[in-house]
Amino acid sequence: MRVYNFASGPAMLPLEVLQQAQAELTDWQGSGMSVMEVSHRGQAFVACAARAEAGLRRLLAVPDDYRVLFLQGGATGQFAAVPLNLTAPGDRVAYLNTGQWSTRAIKAARGQGLAVEVLADQASSRYTTVPADDSYTVPDDAVYLHYTPNETIGGVEFARPPASDRPLVADFSSTILSRPIEVSRHGLIYAGAQKNLGPAGVVVVIVRDDLTGHARPGTPEVWDYAAMAKADSMLNTPPTFAVYLLGLVLDWVEAQGGLEALARRNQAKAVALYRAIDDSGFYRNPVDPPARSWMNVPFTLADPDLESAFLVEAEAAGLTNLQGHRSVGGLRASIYNAMPLAGVEALIDFMADFAARRG
Amino acid sequence: MRVYNFASGPAMLPLEVLQQAQAELTDWQGSGMSVMEVSHRGQAFVACAARAEAGLRRLLAVPDDYRVLFLQGGATGQFAAVPLNLTAPGDRVAYLNTGQWSTRAIKAARGQGLAVEVLADQASSRYTTVPADDSYTVPDDAVYLHYTPNETIGGVEFARPPASDRPLVADFSSTILSRPIEVSRHGLIYAGAQKNLGPAGVVVVIVRDDLTGHARPGTPEVWDYAAMAKADSMLNTPPTFAVYLLGLVLDWVEAQGGLEALARRNQAKAVALYRAIDDSGFYRNPVDPPARSWMNVPFTLADPDLESAFLVEAEAAGLTNLQGHRSVGGLRASIYNAMPLAGVEALIDFMADFAARRG
Repeated sequence: MRVYNFASGPAMLPLEVLQQAQAELTDWQGSGMSVMEVSHRGQAFVACAARAEAGLRRLLAVPDDYRVLFLQGGATGQFAAVPLNLTAPGDRVAYLNTGQWSTRAIKAARGQGLAVEVLADQASSRYTTVPADDSYTVPDDAVYLHYTPNETIGGVEFARPPASDRPLVADFSSTILSRPIEVSRHGLIYAGAQKNLGPAGVVVVIVRDDLTGHARPGTPEVWDYAAMAKADSMLNTPPTFAVYLLGLVLDWVEAQGGLEALARRNQAKAVALYRAIDDSGFYRNPVDPPARSWMNVPFTLADPDLESAFLVEAEAAGLTNLQGHRSVGGLRASIYNAMPLAGVEALIDFMADFAARRG
Repeated sequence: MRVYNFASGPAMLPLEVLQQAQAELTDWQGSGMSVMEVSHRGQAFVACAARAEAGLRRLLAVPDDYRVLFLQGGATGQFAAVPLNLTAPGDRVAYLNTGQWSTRAIKAARGQGLAVEVLADQASSRYTTVPADDSYTVPDDAVYLHYTPNETIGGVEFARPPASDRPLVADFSSTILSRPIEVSRHGLIYAGAQKNLGPAGVVVVIVRDDLTGHARPGTPEVWDYAAMAKADSMLNTPPTFAVYLLGLVLDWVEAQGGLEALARRNQAKAVALYRAIDDSGFYRNPVDPPARSWMNVPFTLADPDLESAFLVEAEAAGLTNLQGHRSVGGLRASIYNAMPLAGVEALIDFMADFAARRG
């Protein structure tokens, strides 16, 4: 029996995608081989990867002067790869800090010998909101302004890109494809796959042409954007199965009606869940309402001692992985694209029932 | 219908492994979730990864003072990560050059600002043999000696590790698990998975403790051996599906009788194929017999104009991906662990028949 899986990532995938992968796992496209067994330089896989890129370009309306790359090493790898590609040692860069992922990106940038200006550090609000556009000034000499559109642990999301005269760089790992993105307002977008794009093991980089070709000497070639763009992301063997599955997820997104339709559904899911929390008098979410994430909903119980009972009973009801991040505790429901409204409704019903019995 | 797939990598996987993955693709271990959907920090996946590490340690008899890491970025990523972890800029390192993969590793080391001594460059032999131990001297101040145990394009393999008083570093991507390895004679072994270990997307690093902890400032943390060892390779989200499948492949290797049994089978496959080539008067392999690879068997036809007919007819007979590497042309049969003896025999029969008809 399939469950409703509220894990923060790796996370739920559309069942239709898994079923297609399952059906053709030993014989892909009548080749007599698994997609995992074919050469990445063969016609069939090259077409598969090109189709995934085209799907991503279509869904996100990526302008022609941006490259789309499929790389390895996750968003954490990009925390280092972005500075290596875009800056020289000693350059100034600016970061908005809205939570733990921002903090890790900042630490990695400092590790590359940059003058890192942290604008609008939200630690003072315990990361429960995003900075207002007029609350910070991006230095004129900053190579870029980096932000984290969605923080999975705090459950804080930018409803729109922050203001910046300098190129925006964004870690979209946990919110890409959840709603339309203004790609053209960004210089570079990166996103690990394991929330809304596919399985862990591939990271998407969307980068404007003029920001490529400036990698520092010594940048590992598998992370050199210009070199990878020139090689269609196949300078070395790509993570073929992950790219294939990403393509199936993109097909699924199109079949759902694209990003506008998913945005409506995601908003409805989030609104319903936050309302259930706010109205309960039993559950609590601390985030400033306009900055509440559509993807990750952390919450606490009036009585923290009931958390383990909540998790055990939820699990028994087929609602899994609701524990909060180990660094903050509490509970968290991650409701990415693949989580249907029915799953959120089942959670809301369970929460109401639990509160009635234990509140 | 499954085919005999002679691709050089990504390559054939054991059918039993694919079938198990297929059976549990939407519901892993009764969890109601795919292995791709579970948290890498959950008990089930942590146990899965630990079991894969234990299997690799057992099969390769890895000594206790070596760490086993599961990283991303492939062997090509390690071409840069090895210098970043083991050297400081300006250090001297030594490389044996036995073909195209050695050449790429050397280029990447030069990119990290090292004094690279290329010992025994086999370009003069057109990469058809490996250097004799007494044909080179490793400089006393070399941090390590790097070699490529098997070259997939030239089809050249070291039957045993080269002599060196300095730590040996080896790219075992295309021959790991094909026969026992003297791990303790090496300081560091790395291997991309997509030949004998599993699908593309995970690279195994086996490194002696004393070689970790010296990474250069700025080494990306996902490639910092000490940091990754401390985090059990989960400093960031690992490529969970690839690690899972690697574990299934290791189970399969044990079920085959381990590396001694696979070595006997691989040797028998290679001996039979080379004999068929040598005895044919129609096919030709240029490699010095003691250095012939057990994994990759390149060959040419007496009449190169017949190559495309050979490939078309072979494909029709269910023998696929026999074209040589694009850089050298000709034909090549890659016969990794998952290629059964029956597949090699079918190829030999086809080759004899083709030669009789066209020779």
